[in-house]
Order: sequence, then C-alpha cells, then structure tokens
Amino acid sequence: MYVLHDSKLSGNAWKVRILLTQLGLPFRRVTYVLPEGKTRLPEYLAKNPVGKVPVLELPSGEALFESNAMLFHLAENTPYLPDGLDRARVLQWMFFDQSEALKALSGARFWIGVAKQPEKKEREIPEWHAAGHKALGILDGHLAARDFLAADRYTIADLANFPYVSMAHMGNFEMPRFPNVLAWIERVKAQPGFVPLVQDEPSKTEAA
Amino acid sequence: MYVLHDSKLSGNAWKVRILLTQLGLPFRRVTYVLPEGKTRLPEYLAKNPVGKVPVLELPSGEALFESNAMLFHLAENTPYLPDGLDRARVLQWMFFDQSEALKALSGARFWIGVAKQPEKKEREIPEWHAAGHKALGILDGHLAARDFLAADRYTIADLANFPYVSMAHMGNFEMPRFPNVLAWIERVKAQPGFVPLVQDEPSKTEAA
Repeated sequence: MYVLHDSKLSGNAWKVRILLTQLGLPFRRVTYVLPEGKTRLPEYLAKNPVGKVPVLELPSGEALFESNAMLFHLAENTPYLPDGLDRARVLQWMFFDQSEALKALSGARFWIGVAKQPEKKEREIPEWHAAGHKALGILDGHLAARDFLAADRYTIADLANFPYVSMAHMGNFEMPRFPNVLAWIERVKAQPGFVPLVQDEPSKTEAA
Repeated sequence: MYVLHDSKLSGNAWKVRILLTQLGLPFRRVTYVLPEGKTRLPEYLAKNPVGKVPVLELPSGEALFESNAMLFHLAENTPYLPDGLDRARVLQWMFFDQSEALKALSGARFWIGVAKQPEKKEREIPEWHAAGHKALGILDGHLAARDFLAADRYTIADLANFPYVSMAHMGNFEMPRFPNVLAWIERVKAQPGFVPLVQDEPSKTEAA
C-alpha cells in the first residue's frame, strides 16, 4: 500500500492525495504536526533530505520526495499524463508551478491566511504579491483560450498548479482580476474523485 | 532544426545546449542581451509568457519554455532518461533543482559574480547563502554514496542541477564544504559532448 506522509494543510501533499484518490489507489496517511519538528529527525530525513512534506512511500517501500515527481510517477500510463509533445507541455506547466508560482502563493497564504502573522513577513509579502500576481496573470492569459493547462484535458499539469492557486485568496491575492483562473479552479474541483483539503474523516488520518 | 533562444550567461539555457550537443541535434542559437528587453516584447511573450530565457523552438515550430521540460522532451527514448522508478527519481531531482536550489544559487551568482553589485542585494544574499548551502549539503550527502544523482548513471537529473551548482563559487558559496559535489561537477564536465558556458565560436551565435 502507498503511504503518504503529509500535514493537514499542505497543498503539495493535497495534490498527491487527490491523484491517489482519482486513481483508486489505496493509501494510508501519516499526518505530521509540522511545528513538532518530526520531519527534521534523521528517520524522516532518510526519506526526504529536504525535511518537508509530502513524502510518498511506494508499495515497494521506496520513498519519493518532490510532489510533482510523485504525480508523474503515479500518472504514468493513465489518462492524466499524455505522451509526446503534450507530455512536454504538462511538464512545462509543472515546472512553472515550482519555479514561478509556488513560493509566492504559498508564502503569502501561510503567513496571512494560516499563521495569521503577516507582520512577521512585512518585507516579503509585497514581493510575494508581485510575483504571485505575475504568475496568476500568466495562467489567466493561458486559460483564456482553453479549459485546462495542457493537452486539452485535465492532467497532472492542472493538479500540480491547483492547490496553491485555489488557496491564493487566503494570501490576499486579488483573485477577481483572474476570471479564467477562477473558472478553471471550479473545473478542477468538479473532476471525478476530487477530495477537499480537509476531510471530516478523522479515522483516515493517523497522527504521527 | 531546433532554435534555442538563450543569453550568453544563462545557466538554464546552458543545460539545454549541452544536451542538444550530446544528442547530436543540430540547432541554431538566438542569443539575447537581456537588458535590451527583447524577451519582454509581445513576440517573445507569445513563445514564453514568463519572459525569460531559454525558449526551445522545435522543428515543428512549436515553442517550449521551462528548461527542465525541454531536457525531458529531448531526452525521451535516449539513455539520458531512464524508465520506471528511475524516471521518477530523475524528476525528483529535477524538481529539487527548481524548488530548492535554483533561485538561491543563481541569485547570488548573478549579483556577486556577474553584475558585481552585491550591495544591491544586501538583504537577499545572506538568505540565498543559507538556502543554497542547505541545497548543496543535501546534494553532497546524496552524492556521498553514488556518482550521479539518479539511476547510477549520468542523466538529465545531473544536467538539470549542474549549471548553477557548478557556478555557485561565483556567488561566494563555500564550495570546499561539499567535496562530493565538487567531484560530481568534474564527472559531469567529463561527459562526452559537454560544452562550456561560453565558447569561442562566435559564428555559432546569432545576436538578436
């Protein structure tokens, strides 16, 4: 069985949980309370030297880190990952997520919307807003002419970008400026097998 | 023919140029002088809405952005990109490059080693050094037990991480702390078909 090491509010873990559910793959969650520091202990660092969630343990026992690598591995040979040039386009938007969007969107969302301590990041928040609005504008322009980011259908390119874009409003990003993104968020949420970030099923969560 | 839109000193373009050469694929360079601003004009933004180099135009005329997506597309069905779990590991380290290493290593290298204006980034440089030393330490630990990042051989995982790691000394990162990384840099440079960042072959460069 797959084991997903996550935290309750991690968007990068969320995307993997959505895909596991959409693929019908049984998995067990090991959910960390990050301030407790257990993801910085040697046992965890052996799974992921970066010390972050998520980690995906495969049925073979091997551990993968980097959420987008997990998406690719799980989606291989499924409709969620096309071939050829479409595959390159999927990866293009997955790398875009990591290089252009993630840090800005997740940083502002965490400090404004989760920790609720924006005063601790007074210097960074305007930079995150500038970079995040640029990334959202690029996505909005791209989605003006299409329903999904690549291959004319829902793929792991959408899933890679979805969590922190869909939560950007928590970081005070000006989402009404990006109507195509807002419509795309609803299309992703409408996919069969979609699961919300927080589920009222405590029996499925194992505290670690 | 492939067309690589690059700049003289871009590490992300360099990695694509190395692979094109290693695969024996003919290509033409269109080399931008970034301060001239041509990568922010509509014609360029139609190829890459992020407005950065590199862009790879395929023989079909389609344009790809995100250097690591280019590496994947070019390396498919070659020894530089393995299958199965090894492929997931290759992608894991390619996403690591973008999420953990690139911005810190390239930021310090540019402002200290290229622009030579570290005073303009007094606030960022200590943060880049902290993040970059963490990433270099992770690579060093991983390379303690192996010659290459994934699949026990040279792959696009190595190539993805190579440019900014190999130039990190220009950003005053403390490279002697990372002997396994230093040895790996030499192994990558020794691969058949490797080309240096700057070549004394002006006839191959088309100024744009």
